[in-house]
Amino acid sequence: MSITIAIDCMGGDHGPVVTVPATLAFLSTHPDVEAILVGREEELAPLLEDAQAGLKSRLRVHNATQVVGMDEPPASVRSKKDSSMRVALHLVKHGQAQAAVSAGNTGALVMISRFALKTFPGIDRPAICFALPTIKGHTYALDLGGNVDCTPEHLFQFGVMGSVLASALDHIERPTVGLLNVGTEEIKGNELTKRTAKLLRESNLNYHGYVEGDDIFTGTVDVVVCDGFAGNVALKTSEGLVKMLGTFLREEVRRGPFSMLMGLIALPVLRRFKHRADPGRYNGAVLLGLCGGVVLKSHGSADAYAFEQALARAADAVANDLIRRIRDRMEAMMGANGESV
Amino acid sequence: MSITIAIDCMGGDHGPVVTVPATLAFLSTHPDVEAILVGREEELAPLLEDAQAGLKSRLRVHNATQVVGMDEPPASVRSKKDSSMRVALHLVKHGQAQAAVSAGNTGALVMISRFALKTFPGIDRPAICFALPTIKGHTYALDLGGNVDCTPEHLFQFGVMGSVLASALDHIERPTVGLLNVGTEEIKGNELTKRTAKLLRESNLNYHGYVEGDDIFTGTVDVVVCDGFAGNVALKTSEGLVKMLGTFLREEVRRGPFSMLMGLIALPVLRRFKHRADPGRYNGAVLLGLCGGVVLKSHGSADAYAFEQALARAADAVANDLIRRIRDRMEAMMGANGESV
Repeated sequence: MSITIAIDCMGGDHGPVVTVPATLAFLSTHPDVEAILVGREEELAPLLEDAQAGLKSRLRVHNATQVVGMDEPPASVRSKKDSSMRVALHLVKHGQAQAAVSAGNTGALVMISRFALKTFPGIDRPAICFALPTIKGHTYALDLGGNVDCTPEHLFQFGVMGSVLASALDHIERPTVGLLNVGTEEIKGNELTKRTAKLLRESNLNYHGYVEGDDIFTGTVDVVVCDGFAGNVALKTSEGLVKMLGTFLREEVRRGPFSMLMGLIALPVLRRFKHRADPGRYNGAVLLGLCGGVVLKSHGSADAYAFEQALARAADAVANDLIRRIRDRMEAMMGANGESV
Repeated sequence: MSITIAIDCMGGDHGPVVTVPATLAFLSTHPDVEAILVGREEELAPLLEDAQAGLKSRLRVHNATQVVGMDEPPASVRSKKDSSMRVALHLVKHGQAQAAVSAGNTGALVMISRFALKTFPGIDRPAICFALPTIKGHTYALDLGGNVDCTPEHLFQFGVMGSVLASALDHIERPTVGLLNVGTEEIKGNELTKRTAKLLRESNLNYHGYVEGDDIFTGTVDVVVCDGFAGNVALKTSEGLVKMLGTFLREEVRRGPFSMLMGLIALPVLRRFKHRADPGRYNGAVLLGLCGGVVLKSHGSADAYAFEQALARAADAVANDLIRRIRDRMEAMMGANGESV
């Protein structure tokens, strides 16, 4: 089966100069994938001129005249019917692609995809979900920035979706779900965490209880639930920390000729370490909860390597039949009316 | 001048078995400091038996019969008049010590210290503040978990306090203040960030605008303001990440005999890196805003090395006359009625 991905080439901090080369690099290593490059034809065409004929046969440009700005409020985005983001999502809606990838405005992506691709019954909003690396393997964390203001019901639904995802992808029968808080004790937290904890406790989910920030990387639970504000802070703080530690490590290695020699000798070890810790590797978060197709959100500041990772995740999700597997699990977990059973 | 620190020896996940050895180790390297060990005499005395006479002359045990539990709601703490935490803070209140250090219940520490030591005019609540390392130096981040529910006015006051601290300690005339958010664009955030941004913009602070999680470690601003929920998530997530990366690095070094040899050769470099990245080094956050004395909050799970760092920070703060310097700056910044001018 051939996989087709619709790419919002105009989104992100860098736009086509990153998304187009990333797509070409990706296609060259994924012969089973076809790409629809969505955006302003006059901007995309020059970037494709030098592409190999073999790649050109697996891609086409779909013209879209408008661009959603990174700082545009979601409300004003509605009137942009011909934005590259909306057009890419509608290509999925109409079955011309199975997945869409965008590095654009997160709020707009969540809103448009929710309208175009609909959410599963019982799910109000798609959540941005990512499998973060842990000491033991990985933890699905959601929401990571799609939903800044959440009700307890939203957080509960994130728990359901995360649990379903862990079941579907990792074949865990009853994934453990933790609620992110400032402490693990019952008394800790705010109104939102307390009311969400009650919903999770009374559900049929395998609720572990409160977890703290460090539990994300310890791998205490399979799924970490949080609102988009806290989740985004956790994610971006982690990215900043990895960058800082990388700088520290380089500084230590370059401290003098002897340190440089030692660093040089240990280069293969340091390189493997760098590879494992590289935030670019972990780019591409799924918009979980959409039933009409796969949508991947790339980091806005992604470089070509990072954007390529997001494309790879989209192709993986389609190849693994992610939406069907989530639907099957979701139906088993939710009643016909969308209520959790 | 001799410095006296009152230590809540019962607080934290481990209690006296960590706090007492940490105090002894600390005193042995700080001949100008005296310690009052507050807690259950019968638990503390056995741990002091083997201490050198030279150290014993600089410490005394102050009996306190009650302990504030780590999971006790602040309200129920009020009735515990003889808790080690409250007694330690009251030793500061009554001038018997200039600083108190506790690894105990954060909410209780904030509440009791606020009542015992009062806040500066115009400041409603003390905030937990820490100088986090950055690529360029350090950033003062607050609140890191003392105030989970904040109003825009609270966050604004955190900005004032952080700015004053950066001025007082780092001699920066107009420290830059950033507000933690999920994006730097004007439209990003929730009601709290939007209303706080307005207050900060209209103030006489050197307001930079919104910052994101990664800006904390990039050192984009001198002061990062956030509510205690987001701040605590950022701090603990960072701790977890450092631990995970440490594990990764060890795994890479131990991957085989050749890697081990390379790691061994690079050991001095890796050790210096480990030292710089060690979360234990960064233990001890100041309760900023208190006018009656220095209070340091240690991580609840601190080991003896980490607790010792918190003691060192308390001694530094007293030696540097922190409270007077903050008061001077605060008075210059706030009007007589405590309103920001």
